[in-house]
Amino acid sequence: MTETRLGQATNFDSWKHAYAKRAENLAVSEVRALFSVVSRPEVVSLAGGMPDVSAMDNDAIRSAFDSLMSSRPQYALQYGGGQGDLRLREQICQIMELDGVHGSVEDVMITTGSQHALELISDLFLDQGDVVLVESPSYVGAVGIFRHKEAHIEHVFTDHDGLSPDALEEAVERLKADGKRIKLLYVVPNFANPSGVTLSEERRQRVLQICRDHGILIVEDNPYGLLYFEDQPPKALRAFDGDGVVYLGSFSKILSPGLRVGYVLAPPAIREKLVLANESAILSPATFAQMLVSEYLATCDWQKQVADYRNLYRTKRDAALEAVRQYLPSLHTTEPAGGFFLWLTLPEGLNSKEMLPLAVTELVAYTPGTAFFGDGRGHENIRICFSHPTAENVKVGIHRLANVIDRQIELLETFGSSK
Amino acid sequence: MTETRLGQATNFDSWKHAYAKRAENLAVSEVRALFSVVSRPEVVSLAGGMPDVSAMDNDAIRSAFDSLMSSRPQYALQYGGGQGDLRLREQICQIMELDGVHGSVEDVMITTGSQHALELISDLFLDQGDVVLVESPSYVGAVGIFRHKEAHIEHVFTDHDGLSPDALEEAVERLKADGKRIKLLYVVPNFANPSGVTLSEERRQRVLQICRDHGILIVEDNPYGLLYFEDQPPKALRAFDGDGVVYLGSFSKILSPGLRVGYVLAPPAIREKLVLANESAILSPATFAQMLVSEYLATCDWQKQVADYRNLYRTKRDAALEAVRQYLPSLHTTEPAGGFFLWLTLPEGLNSKEMLPLAVTELVAYTPGTAFFGDGRGHENIRICFSHPTAENVKVGIHRLANVIDRQIELLETFGSSK
Repeated sequence: MTETRLGQATNFDSWKHAYAKRAENLAVSEVRALFSVVSRPEVVSLAGGMPDVSAMDNDAIRSAFDSLMSSRPQYALQYGGGQGDLRLREQICQIMELDGVHGSVEDVMITTGSQHALELISDLFLDQGDVVLVESPSYVGAVGIFRHKEAHIEHVFTDHDGLSPDALEEAVERLKADGKRIKLLYVVPNFANPSGVTLSEERRQRVLQICRDHGILIVEDNPYGLLYFEDQPPKALRAFDGDGVVYLGSFSKILSPGLRVGYVLAPPAIREKLVLANESAILSPATFAQMLVSEYLATCDWQKQVADYRNLYRTKRDAALEAVRQYLPSLHTTEPAGGFFLWLTLPEGLNSKEMLPLAVTELVAYTPGTAFFGDGRGHENIRICFSHPTAENVKVGIHRLANVIDRQIELLETFGSSK
Repeated sequence: MTETRLGQATNFDSWKHAYAKRAENLAVSEVRALFSVVSRPEVVSLAGGMPDVSAMDNDAIRSAFDSLMSSRPQYALQYGGGQGDLRLREQICQIMELDGVHGSVEDVMITTGSQHALELISDLFLDQGDVVLVESPSYVGAVGIFRHKEAHIEHVFTDHDGLSPDALEEAVERLKADGKRIKLLYVVPNFANPSGVTLSEERRQRVLQICRDHGILIVEDNPYGLLYFEDQPPKALRAFDGDGVVYLGSFSKILSPGLRVGYVLAPPAIREKLVLANESAILSPATFAQMLVSEYLATCDWQKQVADYRNLYRTKRDAALEAVRQYLPSLHTTEPAGGFFLWLTLPEGLNSKEMLPLAVTELVAYTPGTAFFGDGRGHENIRICFSHPTAENVKVGIHRLANVIDRQIELLETFGSSK
């Protein structure tokens, strides 16, 4: 299951000569290939990255829908403005306050999931060869977009306290000395996908200062911030810099990804351009989904729902860590204080990508670390997503994974590395 | 209300140096500026381009929602595949059959309105300077995307039978002789936006032949095809060429634009790339909206709904043509056999863009023809959208417009042209 095989065109293409240059950078993501595996019921999937929507209060959705269809169906079914529904933007400002962010409703735009915000921002800023600084590892969907824009993706050293400011400074100076144009720093500061780590409070200030000093725009992506298991994470980077940070949020993890409602808060001049880009791409974000979310927020106890999710995912995180300690005691794992993911480091000589087909044979799936690097690294890493399976299945899955890894270690000790 | 004024940045921009080159081509559309006018109740808006969703059977939507939430809420609220819901794609294949198109469910992809299909196709094919051939006039949202991709937009002469094959051939040969790379022909063959004209059966064959001969991919956009007032329009271009045509459809005009569910049928190799591009941009189209549409199609009498729309829009079209004949007898108008739009030609010396503020003062809005050209033409034209106001208000609006035009003609006769 290599990228080359998956990416191979299986159909004859009489338009091969006609594609734009940037089309060459459309790659099949490894996460995508795993969606088909997920659907087989006998496989425990620790891949994915999906919320457990079975914990969603469906009666609340029904009641929000009824309320919407009784009051304003003609608005909900009609085109809307390119920036998005005003009431929802007001509600989003209140939600962002929880993260320490004081944004104006004028500077919020609704997007088709925060993925599309990332696409629009990248399209707005990235010319071929421009540098985007990212964590090591970084979100697979972001890496994919930056690659599609023909950007230079530079991974910056990251540890259990998040992105390293020292490494950031070193990278910036080296790249500038090489004459590169550094445009963006993309960072998931809370319970990062895929590592699960959180950027420490002290580092946030240093990262902000470095980016300010060098004129680098920060793209702060915060889908998991409200899903903390112990303490709330530190205030957002955006809380300290209104002009230097574009802030992304989403209802995908606290409500439903099937609605595709995300948002972006940007400095006014950037926001103006993002609205134009949004209109150009989709005319207007889906009014129906926006108004359904807004009605839900206005009439249901959404904070209770988020608290339920927190409890649920804490239980699953505990199950995952317990299983790793029990079945894979020699492996290093991150210990996330929120979110969806663990990041495991395999013993030397093992290759997470090559091992995946064996794991699937043993009825467990995961995402190999290579998906989260734009530079070919990550073979020694595995992302475990504990949010979607039951806590029991999280344990079963990690147990099966341990069997696969143990057998690999055994083979390695007997026959040496396959390389 | 000129493009320059609207497009001016109103906010100080400390990131001005950082934008990508293509960002310069993001322009404020004239249609967008009109959305704020539309919302004032005393103004009759013949601008917009919106369906009359008050004619939608809301009980059908409710019943589809109930059915969905009772049977498969956990799928509807979850992420889906990048290509879109399988059952909906099957239903789309049945709908396309009505247009003479036999497509495989494997080659259909769901998009966030057909606008996003157009965005993804353009991104896939258009390098800077590549030529896109379009009708004269062409859809404002398409022109905007092509401009954003830094394409060369070439308008081809169009009359009451649609795009002229002779003019197409001439343009292709001239552009090729100039060394240009012609990538796409973008065409709305049925009840075009904004002209209302339909490409004749005979011309469809010639257009197909010319594009085949010159290796030009046709992008056939058909949002209005089912909204015919007399005879069904001729079969789609795609019905005759599976490899040379990418076909776009939408539920925005026959169901609801607020759901943002459109689709694209493409040759297999192109479809493969479109799915990757869709995933990169938004991860997956909104599952909830897709499954709601699918449930609606499966359980409600959607063909009756479309028939209701046909009757409603026919009445409004009749009201519009009657009012033009009564109040503006000297003006040329197209006579659409379906869809949403009339295209008026003003007497020489009048300027539709300059006249718009006066019209708004007289409580009527329209879209100036300049919005539908990438080359500055269209000052002598007006697009009238008759679909959204009541038939009565269509007449009132055209009466007000006639007063504005008459006064302009009077001024012109007294003082001469303003130029």
